Amino acid sequence: MSSTEFKVDRRDIQFILNEVFEVGKLCEFPAFSEFDPDTFHLIIEEAANFAEKVIAPINEIGDSEGCVLKDGKVITPKGFKEAWRQMGENGWIGLSVSPELGGQGAPDLIAVAATDALVSSNQAFLITRFLTSGAVNLIQTFGSEEQKALYCEKMATGEWAGTMCLTEPGAGTAVGDIVTTATKEGDRYLIKGTKMFITSGDHDFTDNIIHMVLARLPDAPPGPKGISLFIIPKIRHDGTPNDITVVNLEHKMGIHGSPTCLLSFGENNQCYGELLQAENQGMAQMFQMMNESRLQIGLQGLAASAAAYEFALSYANERVQGIAVQHGKDQSASRSLIVEHPDVRRMLMNIKATAEGLRGFMYACGHATDMSQHGPEETRNHYQNLLDLYIPIAKAFGTDEGFQAACTGVQVLGGVGYTRDFPLEQNARDAKIGSIYEGSNGVQALDLVGRKFNMKNGELLQSLQEELKYFGQVTIPQEIQGLIGEWNSYRDLMFEAVDNLRHLSKSEGSQGYVLYATNMLALMGDVLCAFYLLKQAAVAQNKFEAMASEAASRESLLEESTDARFYWNKIRTAEHYVLVLLPRALSNARVIKNGSLASLQAKLELAV
Amino acid sequence: MSSTEFKVDRRDIQFILNEVFEVGKLCEFPAFSEFDPDTFHLIIEEAANFAEKVIAPINEIGDSEGCVLKDGKVITPKGFKEAWRQMGENGWIGLSVSPELGGQGAPDLIAVAATDALVSSNQAFLITRFLTSGAVNLIQTFGSEEQKALYCEKMATGEWAGTMCLTEPGAGTAVGDIVTTATKEGDRYLIKGTKMFITSGDHDFTDNIIHMVLARLPDAPPGPKGISLFIIPKIRHDGTPNDITVVNLEHKMGIHGSPTCLLSFGENNQCYGELLQAENQGMAQMFQMMNESRLQIGLQGLAASAAAYEFALSYANERVQGIAVQHGKDQSASRSLIVEHPDVRRMLMNIKATAEGLRGFMYACGHATDMSQHGPEETRNHYQNLLDLYIPIAKAFGTDEGFQAACTGVQVLGGVGYTRDFPLEQNARDAKIGSIYEGSNGVQALDLVGRKFNMKNGELLQSLQEELKYFGQVTIPQEIQGLIGEWNSYRDLMFEAVDNLRHLSKSEGSQGYVLYATNMLALMGDVLCAFYLLKQAAVAQNKFEAMASEAASRESLLEESTDARFYWNKIRTAEHYVLVLLPRALSNARVIKNGSLASLQAKLELAV
Repeated sequence: MSSTEFKVDRRDIQFILNEVFEVGKLCEFPAFSEFDPDTFHLIIEEAANFAEKVIAPINEIGDSEGCVLKDGKVITPKGFKEAWRQMGENGWIGLSVSPELGGQGAPDLIAVAATDALVSSNQAFLITRFLTSGAVNLIQTFGSEEQKALYCEKMATGEWAGTMCLTEPGAGTAVGDIVTTATKEGDRYLIKGTKMFITSGDHDFTDNIIHMVLARLPDAPPGPKGISLFIIPKIRHDGTPNDITVVNLEHKMGIHGSPTCLLSFGENNQCYGELLQAENQGMAQMFQMMNESRLQIGLQGLAASAAAYEFALSYANERVQGIAVQHGKDQSASRSLIVEHPDVRRMLMNIKATAEGLRGFMYACGHATDMSQHGPEETRNHYQNLLDLYIPIAKAFGTDEGFQAACTGVQVLGGVGYTRDFPLEQNARDAKIGSIYEGSNGVQALDLVGRKFNMKNGELLQSLQEELKYFGQVTIPQEIQGLIGEWNSYRDLMFEAVDNLRHLSKSEGSQGYVLYATNMLALMGDVLCAFYLLKQAAVAQNKFEAMASEAASRESLLEESTDARFYWNKIRTAEHYVLVLLPRALSNARVIKNGSLASLQAKLELAV
Repeated sequence: MSSTEFKVDRRDIQFILNEVFEVGKLCEFPAFSEFDPDTFHLIIEEAANFAEKVIAPINEIGDSEGCVLKDGKVITPKGFKEAWRQMGENGWIGLSVSPELGGQGAPDLIAVAATDALVSSNQAFLITRFLTSGAVNLIQTFGSEEQKALYCEKMATGEWAGTMCLTEPGAGTAVGDIVTTATKEGDRYLIKGTKMFITSGDHDFTDNIIHMVLARLPDAPPGPKGISLFIIPKIRHDGTPNDITVVNLEHKMGIHGSPTCLLSFGENNQCYGELLQAENQGMAQMFQMMNESRLQIGLQGLAASAAAYEFALSYANERVQGIAVQHGKDQSASRSLIVEHPDVRRMLMNIKATAEGLRGFMYACGHATDMSQHGPEETRNHYQNLLDLYIPIAKAFGTDEGFQAACTGVQVLGGVGYTRDFPLEQNARDAKIGSIYEGSNGVQALDLVGRKFNMKNGELLQSLQEELKYFGQVTIPQEIQGLIGEWNSYRDLMFEAVDNLRHLSKSEGSQGYVLYATNMLALMGDVLCAFYLLKQAAVAQNKFEAMASEAASRESLLEESTDARFYWNKIRTAEHYVLVLLPRALSNARVIKNGSLASLQAKLELAV
C-alpha cells in the first residue's frame, strides 16, 4: 500500500473477533444458528474488500466536491449514489436487521466489526447508513405490522434511506424543547415545523427518504413527555411528493460528502406523517435505540484512529529524513526512514494503542448487545448493565480519542500532513464532528454519571466491578502479570474516583457533581480500553509463546512469521497503553478529587 | 460584541504588561529611554484597534477566498494587500527593529504583546510579518552596512517583504541535507535549487520580496556545517526580475490566506544572490534568530486560544438552551444561557486558563529577551538561560495547547461550531499548522532535552531552579498560599522527572532519552504556565483585597466593578489551572518514570 491508498487492518479485526471474543460461539444461540465461523470470517473479508475497493476511492472526492443544493434538491459527490446502491445490494445496510425484514440477521458483534472496516474508509459516506439502519430499527421495534412491511425491507436493502429529525433551531441538546407540531387528521397527522442539522435530510441516493420526526401534539404535556415520533416519507405512498422543503445545506469543517440539511416540514400545510406506535412516546422510543446510534458514532472515532494509523505508518515507512539518533552523528551515514525516529515511533504507537484499545472496547459493546439479547438468561442482565454503562463512554471517549489520534496522524506526516495531498487532514476534519453530534460529549458524560451511575440503584457499576475482576479469575501469562498489576491499580483508582465524585455531590450539589463528569468518563474510557487491550495481550502472549517454543530463536521467528510479529506487537501495544497512555487516569482522578469550583465561581457572564 | 465579531482582551494584556511585568521599568534602560508607560499603553491600544478594525474583518475572506496562483504570480485574498500597506505605515512590522533601520525600537515585551493582539485576529495574514521581521533581524545581525542600508528600512516599513527558504523536498526537519547550490561568480552567487513550503514565497503585498535562502557551495563540508545563507531578491537592484519561479501553491487544511509556495531558484541559470556575512555560517545564523521566530509561532498558539475564548464566551452568553442543573427539573422554568451549564463553564475555563497561562509565559519570554539584552549586566546571563530553555516550550506547548483550546472552542458552540457560519472551526484549522512548521513540536522537544538541558553544563536548568524559587522569596497573599503549595509539589515533580529522564539515558541510551522528550516538554509547559498565572493571581489577590476593604460587600463590589470582577476571575483562573489542568503533569511524570520501550521494540516496519 501507499500512504494515500487505504487498507483495512483485517488481521486485527479477525483477531479480536475470533481469538479474543470467540465470535463463533454466538452460533450456538438460536438467533445465529444459520451462521458459522467461516461465514463470519467471509463477511469481514468482504466488508474490507468493499471498503477498500468501492468506498475508499470516493473519500477524497466527497471532500473536494461536497454536496450541492440545486433547485431544492441535494446532489451528492460523484460516485456516492452508485456506491450506495452497491452497499444495499451487498447487504451492508441491513447486516444486523432480522431476515424477515429484509436484513441479514448477523450478530451485532459482526455488524460492529463490519462497520469498523467500512467507516474507516469513508466517514462522510457511511453516515447515511447509520441513519437508515437506525430508522429501520425504530420501525422494527415500535412499528405496526403494516409499517414494518411498508418500510423495513426497502430501507434495509438501501432502496430507500432514512433520517432522524430531532434538532430544531431552538432545540439542540434540549430536545424536549422542540416546537414542531403534529395535528391529528383522521389516521394521519399534519406536521409543521423546521428541523435543523438533519444529516442526509435530502440526497440523490434513493427515490424515497423516510424521515423519523419528533413533533408535539397540540394538547401534549410540556417538555420531553409531550413528544411523539412520526414516520414522514419524502414521497407519499401514492407517489406524490410530501410537503418537505430543503431550505439550506450547511457548510462544514468536514464530512463534506454528508449533506446536512435545514428542512421545513409543511410550509404549505400539506405535510403528512404516520404516528409510530402511540402518542407522547417519542423520547422513550428514541432512548431505546440510542445504544445503537451512539455506538455507531463511537465507531466513527475508532475508524478515524484506524485510518490515521494505516496512513501514518505507511508514510513513515516511505519517507526518508535525517539520521535516527541510534545511528550516531556521522553525517556520512545513510539516511533513515522516519519510522526509525523514536519520536515518530512514539506517535505511531499512541495512534495504534488508541485504535486497538478502542477496537477492543467497541467490540465488547457489540458482544454485550448480542449476549444481552440472545445469550444465556442468567447473564443477560449483566451484559445489559455493561452495555448501558459503556455506551456513553464508547461514544464520547471514542470520538475524543479518535480525533486526537487523527491529529497525531497529521503530525507524523509533518508539512505534507497539513496539505490536501494526503488523506490525514481530511480524516481529522471529518472526525471532529463525532464529539458534537448524536448528543455532544458533554451530554454523554452527564448521561454516564447522572443516569447510568444511578440506574437500578447503582447496579451497573456493580456489574462493571464484577467484569473487571476478570484477570483475577483466569491464568495470566507470566510475562504480562506486571502490566496487569499496574492496570489493577488504575482500576481501583477509577472506583475511588466514583466515590469522590459522589462525595462532591454531597458537598456541592448537582452542579459540583456534574462539573467533572467529563473527567470521570475519560478516566473510565482509559481503564476500559486498557482492559480490553490487556485481554488481547494475554491471548497474544500465549500464542507467541507457543510459536516461540517451536522456533530456532525469537529473532528468527519475528523475522519470518507475520503472525509472530502481530502477536509480538499486540503485547507491546498493550504495554504502551498501560505505561504511556493510561497514566492520564492519574490526572483525571486528581481533578475529580480536587473538585475545584473555580469555574462555577468565576464571573463568565459578559459585563453589561 | 457578537460571537462572530472579534475583540482583543485589552484588559488582560495591559494587566500582565503593567501590573505583573511592570513594563514601565524597561524605560530605565538606555535602549528604551525614549519610551514611557503611557506610550506603551497607547501602542497596545492601537494594536488592538488595528487588529479589530483592519485585520479581523478580512480573516474569514482569507479562508474562503484563499490564495490563487495565476500566470506564475500569487494573488492574495481581497483586502490583504491594503491591510499590509497599513500595517507597514502604522509601524507594526518593524515594532522592535532599531530606529536606525527604520523600526520603532520598542522592547520585545511590547512587541510580543502587540503581536498577541494582532495574530489572534487573523493568523494567516500575520505570518508574512513574522517572516519579514525575521529576515530584517537576520540582516540586522549579520549583514554588511551596505546590506542593512539596502534592505532593512524597506522591509521594516513593509515596502518590501521577506521569506525564509530552508525546506526542500528531501530536506525538511533535516535541514542539513539541503542540496540547493550556490556558485561564486565574482562578488555574487549563482543559486540553483527547489525550495518547498515557502510561506509568503510569492504574493502581491509588495513590489519586491527578499528571500533568505540556505544553499550549499560546491566545496562545502557535508551536513549542517556546509550551509551558507544568501539574500536573494525577487526583483534585482536594476529592476529586472530574478530567476525565481513559483512552481506550485499548496492546498492546506487552514491558513488559506497565507500562500505556501514551491519555489524554483535558477531554472534558467539566472538566479543571483548575495552572501550573508561569510560562507558556511548559514546554520549558525539561523540558530541565532530561532528564539525570535519560534516565539512568534508560540504566540500563534496563544492567539488561537485567545480567539477561541472570546468567541466561545460570547456565544455562551447569547445562546439559550435547556435548563441548567442548578435550577432543578421544573420544565416550566425559564431556559438558561449555555454559560450557566457547568460543563460549558468548565470548557470555557479550560480555554481561559490556557490562554492566560500561555500569555503569562509568552510575555515572560519577551521580558527575558529584553532583560538579557538591555537589563543589568549581572542578570543578563540568567535571563538568557531562561529564554533559551523557554523557547522550545513556548513554541511546542503554545501551539499544542492553543490548538486544543481552539478545538474546545468549537465544542462549546456545538453544531454551529462545526459550520463555517462561526469563526471557531477556521480558528482550529488555522492553528493546527503551529505544531508543524518552524521545527515540528517533536523537534522542539529534542531541542529542549538534547541541547538545552545540556548547554553550559546544565546551567539553564539551574537558572530555572532559581527562578522558580520566586514564591519563597516574596510575601504571598494568604488566600492563594494553598494553591502555591500545590504548585510547589508539581515543580518538584518536574525536576524529579528531569532526573528520571537522565536515568533513562544511562540505562537505555539516546533512544530511550529522547523517547519521552515530548512528555517532558508538556510537563514543563504546564508547570511554567501555572507559575506565571499564579504570579498574576498574587497581584490580583492583593488588588482585590484592597478594593474589598473599601466596599460595602464582596457581592456588591463584584456586581459594580469591572476591575473587581477581572481580579476575581484571575484568581479563579489560576485555581482552575492548578487544580484542573496542572494534574496532567502527574501523567507526564509517570510516563517518564515508567520509561516504557515498547514503541522501540514493536515491529512498526511494514511487512515485506
